[in-house]
Amino acid sequence: MAVSAEILCIGTELLLGQIVNTNARFLAQELAALGIPHHYQSVVGDNPERIHHALDVAMARSGLILTTGGLGPTADDLTHPTIAEHFGVPLVRHPEQLTRIEARFRARQRPMSATNARQADLPAGAEVLPNPTGTAPGILWQARPQVLILTFPGVPAEMRAMWQQTAVPFLRSKGWGQEVFISRTLRHWGISESLLAEKAAAYLAQDNPTVAPYAGDGEVKLRITARAATPEAARALIAPVEAGLRALAGDDCYGADDETLASVCGKLLVSTGTTLSVAESCTGGLVGAAITAVPGASRYFAGGVLAYDNALKTQLLAVEEEILIAHGAVSEPAVRQMAEGVRRLTSSDWGLALTGISGPEGGTEQKPVGLVYLALAGPQGTRVQELRLGAERGREAIRLVSSQSALDLLRREIIAQRASGMLKG
Amino acid sequence: MAVSAEILCIGTELLLGQIVNTNARFLAQELAALGIPHHYQSVVGDNPERIHHALDVAMARSGLILTTGGLGPTADDLTHPTIAEHFGVPLVRHPEQLTRIEARFRARQRPMSATNARQADLPAGAEVLPNPTGTAPGILWQARPQVLILTFPGVPAEMRAMWQQTAVPFLRSKGWGQEVFISRTLRHWGISESLLAEKAAAYLAQDNPTVAPYAGDGEVKLRITARAATPEAARALIAPVEAGLRALAGDDCYGADDETLASVCGKLLVSTGTTLSVAESCTGGLVGAAITAVPGASRYFAGGVLAYDNALKTQLLAVEEEILIAHGAVSEPAVRQMAEGVRRLTSSDWGLALTGISGPEGGTEQKPVGLVYLALAGPQGTRVQELRLGAERGREAIRLVSSQSALDLLRREIIAQRASGMLKG
Repeated sequence: MAVSAEILCIGTELLLGQIVNTNARFLAQELAALGIPHHYQSVVGDNPERIHHALDVAMARSGLILTTGGLGPTADDLTHPTIAEHFGVPLVRHPEQLTRIEARFRARQRPMSATNARQADLPAGAEVLPNPTGTAPGILWQARPQVLILTFPGVPAEMRAMWQQTAVPFLRSKGWGQEVFISRTLRHWGISESLLAEKAAAYLAQDNPTVAPYAGDGEVKLRITARAATPEAARALIAPVEAGLRALAGDDCYGADDETLASVCGKLLVSTGTTLSVAESCTGGLVGAAITAVPGASRYFAGGVLAYDNALKTQLLAVEEEILIAHGAVSEPAVRQMAEGVRRLTSSDWGLALTGISGPEGGTEQKPVGLVYLALAGPQGTRVQELRLGAERGREAIRLVSSQSALDLLRREIIAQRASGMLKG
Repeated sequence: MAVSAEILCIGTELLLGQIVNTNARFLAQELAALGIPHHYQSVVGDNPERIHHALDVAMARSGLILTTGGLGPTADDLTHPTIAEHFGVPLVRHPEQLTRIEARFRARQRPMSATNARQADLPAGAEVLPNPTGTAPGILWQARPQVLILTFPGVPAEMRAMWQQTAVPFLRSKGWGQEVFISRTLRHWGISESLLAEKAAAYLAQDNPTVAPYAGDGEVKLRITARAATPEAARALIAPVEAGLRALAGDDCYGADDETLASVCGKLLVSTGTTLSVAESCTGGLVGAAITAVPGASRYFAGGVLAYDNALKTQLLAVEEEILIAHGAVSEPAVRQMAEGVRRLTSSDWGLALTGISGPEGGTEQKPVGLVYLALAGPQGTRVQELRLGAERGREAIRLVSSQSALDLLRREIIAQRASGMLKG
């Protein structure tokens, strides 16, 4: 059996159950993707004697130890001092790291405390594992002929950046992860997990690549995972399966991997040379936030109106008082005028509007919590859609699913108009 | 030291990173609430030899072992057979459990496979830990004078029901969990973790309650954890420490536990009877989304303008062309006019505006990525703030920290005006 890896997460907050251990999950997925065998995970608190014990246990059974947590500036951040002590070496201050940390504080015009300097102290003999997004560096250290140790901070974003930018290339250079597992995730909107699983039954049964369904908050994913000697060979195994799955899902499949409904809409807007504005009521900015999360959104997103108060609906979007009185703000005619109003106001090609009842208060028998109206005003007129999401989903999910459904409405309309030749691109 | 508990999660899906280990988090929270010391967590796959090894390691350091997973009907569910083997006892079939399992299948009119009967086979000498919601029972077993073992299925809902209905009363009857641990988390904005840790040094050094700092995305938390015989006694220990920490943090402490900057601003707006509108550029709706995530936001939030395109800044917010030409859209004068413009447009008491460069593109030497201007227009005039967040944080964090900083600007201004008597409430 190849020498295997082990994950050691250090942090009392994990033992108290204050946070879920997403770092272990991320590293486990990555080790699997690299084909590095991984048989054990452990969690200990910020306690030197138990960290020593956990290191003893791990060294006795694993050749690669990945630690997360305990690299912060405070007195209960003990990972590097304890590792140094464990292997009987002193801590050595790395001036270039100290300079980096000082520079970060200067850049933020924040006072730097003496304790921050501790983050530049690493076990003698260990290489620096640079932290591009935070103050705490980790280490890459062949502490013993049979023991390679990598340390990461507990902050997930910093840990992930360090893993991807430095740790993975380093491990490959040391001969780890020669067999690769490559995954590709197809993303779907507007189809249920069970229905998609039925359509894809033949694929779900096969082995390499494997296909597994996941669902949550309105989205359904199919993860294709292939095992091969090289990334290219793995991708070659994935390609025909992806093509087959896309064919049977049709427009319900909106993208893959890191693509979002917002990024896909962005591509469609760019390719068709059209622009978008939004009028949001119940979502209060979620749609705009999703659209502008995509770099370069300014090429196609004008902005819009957060018409939370009805006064803004009438004043800025020219929704008629009579409509609000006769049908209410959560109604088909109101959302239609909101979409057309914001399109006109911003002189954009598309106006996307939402109004609904997110709860927990404000629902009635006729208009229950979870009732949401979407409208898309465009060159060919206005399309309106009613959603009934159910109160039991809760406010957060109702707002999230509504905003994603609005983007999906835009996506399908652009695709349809492009297919029918009404839109170029 | 009291004899301590240890969590052993069994399941290859955890090692592959296919699921997050929420069971460990749940049990950790429960052990903390019961005051049962808990120093280690481990994860192993569905592999007998490694389960044996993990049991050896756990028995050597812990008196109470809680396992999750591996109780299913399939061949890779090995927890009970391996535990029986580990302690040298046979598996014994429990007829009443078999009857229960058969009944469940009949009730669902589903065929029962022969392998399901395996779930009724438990180590000789172990008591049954009934599973009210699933087929797989667990065990309660004093396997050795010093080792008490409880096993649970991996299905979270089943594990939780079994824990609450049977395991907790059982453990209390055995003298475990006579103490309770209660935690309270103070939330801070506008102060660094290291600086706050220095101020709070005396508290961080004390024992019961303990105080521990955590930081991420601009927020710094102090977690106060007290151990006592009753929840009331624990809260009584926390109260003076919380008071002391709040006193030294001052307005940098914005709330506790589930409070958010948006919910705290909501309370302040309600208590002062004032209303808010927003003009967002770089954040594209994040501030509005955060505000409207709080139920009842319609009482104080009018809405606002997503002024992503400069045309909307001039057209709706009356930002002067000359200002945009002379200073650019990301400038103090521009953000000032945005805040005053949206306040006027919506006739609200407060107008909150943001404009900045979230990157990755669009930065210059004078105006680097991460440069953000905030403005708050109010009854007493307009306050402007400059943030330099640094490009390396990435677009998402820059947008998030900007939106939270804007809410913090509003929070501090309302508190200050209320203190000076300029605002009632």
